[in-house]
Amino acid sequence: MKLASLRHGRDGRLVIVSRDLKTMLPVDQLCPTLQMALDSWTIMAPKLQAVSEALNKGEASGAIAYDATRLHSPLPRAYQWCDGSAYLNHVELVRKARNAVMPPEFLHDPLMYQGGSDDFLPPTADIEVADEAYGIDFEGEVAAITGDVPMGASSAEAAKHIRLLMLVNDVSLRNLIPGELAKGFGFFHGKPSTAFAPVAVTPDELGDAWKDNKVMRPLVSILNGKQFGAPDAGTDMQFSLADLVAHAAKTRRLRAGCIVGSGTVSNRDASKGFSCLAEIRMIETIADGKPKTPFMKFGDRIEMEMTGLDGQSIFGRIDQTVVKYTPPS
Amino acid sequence: MKLASLRHGRDGRLVIVSRDLKTMLPVDQLCPTLQMALDSWTIMAPKLQAVSEALNKGEASGAIAYDATRLHSPLPRAYQWCDGSAYLNHVELVRKARNAVMPPEFLHDPLMYQGGSDDFLPPTADIEVADEAYGIDFEGEVAAITGDVPMGASSAEAAKHIRLLMLVNDVSLRNLIPGELAKGFGFFHGKPSTAFAPVAVTPDELGDAWKDNKVMRPLVSILNGKQFGAPDAGTDMQFSLADLVAHAAKTRRLRAGCIVGSGTVSNRDASKGFSCLAEIRMIETIADGKPKTPFMKFGDRIEMEMTGLDGQSIFGRIDQTVVKYTPPS
Repeated sequence: MKLASLRHGRDGRLVIVSRDLKTMLPVDQLCPTLQMALDSWTIMAPKLQAVSEALNKGEASGAIAYDATRLHSPLPRAYQWCDGSAYLNHVELVRKARNAVMPPEFLHDPLMYQGGSDDFLPPTADIEVADEAYGIDFEGEVAAITGDVPMGASSAEAAKHIRLLMLVNDVSLRNLIPGELAKGFGFFHGKPSTAFAPVAVTPDELGDAWKDNKVMRPLVSILNGKQFGAPDAGTDMQFSLADLVAHAAKTRRLRAGCIVGSGTVSNRDASKGFSCLAEIRMIETIADGKPKTPFMKFGDRIEMEMTGLDGQSIFGRIDQTVVKYTPPS
Repeated sequence: MKLASLRHGRDGRLVIVSRDLKTMLPVDQLCPTLQMALDSWTIMAPKLQAVSEALNKGEASGAIAYDATRLHSPLPRAYQWCDGSAYLNHVELVRKARNAVMPPEFLHDPLMYQGGSDDFLPPTADIEVADEAYGIDFEGEVAAITGDVPMGASSAEAAKHIRLLMLVNDVSLRNLIPGELAKGFGFFHGKPSTAFAPVAVTPDELGDAWKDNKVMRPLVSILNGKQFGAPDAGTDMQFSLADLVAHAAKTRRLRAGCIVGSGTVSNRDASKGFSCLAEIRMIETIADGKPKTPFMKFGDRIEMEMTGLDGQSIFGRIDQTVVKYTPPS
């Protein structure tokens, strides 16, 4: 089934979206919010599934037209947002661009940081940034929403707790990151509010494109109306989403509604294009000593989408424009 | 007023606690959870304040005996938990123990990391750890819970959004941290679930001990029944809680219920003792080339408390024992 949240209050109003993304049905009388559905998934999922089946058959009353601009991120806020870095090509490029090698332990020990989760952006909301000089970038990723995961869960155990899948724009402020990482505590200012595609889906919605806990489909990024990249999310993914969930749970439990991201989707085959500007800039730096593609400017637009094996958009579309933010005086 | 959460479901049941921590009154019919109170603070705070005043006068019906073992962390889970490092003595010692100097920019640019917030520990819950070799440590801190803070807020603006204050045990797994920080993405496994003292208080409860957005009282840590330290939380604090909130909000909004921590309370005067084992170990390392105080072992107990100018416990007591965790097979 496909779930989304109408923009409403702090946590949205739960809707079920039809498989073809043509209609959506508010189900907040059954379950007010997606977080509440996740909190009681065993009880709620079968009920929501029954409504989803009726909606897909055109038999549900009260359905309204799908409209991404009325939707928030599936979880407008979450209790945890852990973002891994599973596509090692991206990591290797970052290092190569500064003449460093990737430590061999990165092959079995994923990078992961914790992002802010109290204020996600709606999928069609502007990206507000105070200064273009921050080095504004997008990052296309896939992510899992988990149920309750026990501490020390294996990857196989973690896989059982993947409830929903999403598409992410992990907005990054590249020029703030080097100074921040040099301080030793990881990302903070360099990772402002994240956006997610409007629709979260149960893994079965992907059919054969969900394999070994990976999403075997290209992630298409469109920058200012032109395709920027379509790397395959199932290719060159060193750690599956289940591996990343298990990594996150090594020393603590994860609780229902925890989001675990893949990191920037990146293929070794550069002809597939990229899911962030940093990567093409690294390739330019390796080739020419310096980048030529600029970071995003105010007015720039980024769209992201992924279609299934049937050509149908799975998660709906992220469609965001960068705008100048003026802080309170 | 003083607020707490009875252990109940995922978010607890809101109670008001009397100033003397003798009684508590469930108010979940007025407002079910602390998060909900924070979500609608302008409306809810005056109502809760009126009940608090009645409770403190002994005029509230339905009050029950205060019992910390029935309480969860004030927010059993939160949408954000940002932890700063405002006591630079701690930072300097960490560096000195490894023969490094503190970068001068640390005087005006706080260290801050993001912690897991989906699964806080109750204040009297065991600290479950799989392996003593992880280097189990406590970290005593103070923290603020904010309302909605605009992006780019100044420290003065941020101060207006401090709703509640808490006491923290930021449990740390010291031996996992060096390898983790070397990866460059900051803390993850080294910071398992955090615990908070049972009672969150509005700043006015501190009277004159709340000054310049700092808590001017000693934080007492008791290890296995013996006082381990009582450094003053208002002394040597380079960044106030308002400064830390403003830092957290530099590139994004903070939303109601965001927790911002001070980092380990640490005084330059070592005779005050310490709020974590790492610090005495660093002092031992600087003096003797190696630490002699061990990290916590299974069965070790840590208590933390802070009294007000009137000698009354402000936040109640953290009282936790480390126990062995066995992962699912």
